[in-house]
Amino acid sequence: MDTKEAQDMIRRIYLDRDRARGLERTLLRTFEELGELSDAILRGKSRNEMSDEIADVFAWVCSIANLLDIDLSGALCNKYNGVCSKCGRTPCECTEAP
Amino acid sequence: MDTKEAQDMIRRIYLDRDRARGLERTLLRTFEELGELSDAILRGKSRNEMSDEIADVFAWVCSIANLLDIDLSGALCNKYNGVCSKCGRTPCECTEAP
Repeated sequence: MDTKEAQDMIRRIYLDRDRARGLERTLLRTFEELGELSDAILRGKSRNEMSDEIADVFAWVCSIANLLDIDLSGALCNKYNGVCSKCGRTPCECTEAP
Repeated sequence: MDTKEAQDMIRRIYLDRDRARGLERTLLRTFEELGELSDAILRGKSRNEMSDEIADVFAWVCSIANLLDIDLSGALCNKYNGVCSKCGRTPCECTEAP
């Protein structure tokens, strides 16, 4: 699925609720979802549960992008044009600790 | 850009470093990046800066998916098949607070 399509799907389903909740509370919900993904990983939950949790995180990031009216795919391509955004290499050759 | 391509791009650039860092520290870095996006929003930074920050969050979510060997696009489609994962409607008609 194209990232634009993914973002559009989340917009169609959730934009009204995202707007009603507002940007700051949507950020907080995204932290919460990242916490749920962390919990699934720390507790060694099933692959399906981890898949659902990372899908939720992705969906919430799409919601933030929708509220900011930013194209997530374009943002990624602008920042990471096939190479590391810091060292400009693929694979990344940055010398700082990973 | 296809979400699979985005995830593949991040894999090509960062998988070695992601593996060296490990999953738990990669999760922590993702919290950190979400914090940087929050900071950009709270401080009313420029659209370009917010775009860069949300790109970073997306890239880190791709890194987590790569470490878990989960296809992010497939995970999203499984959980949100064009409708809300809870009420099954588009737009979402859940009655709880957004």
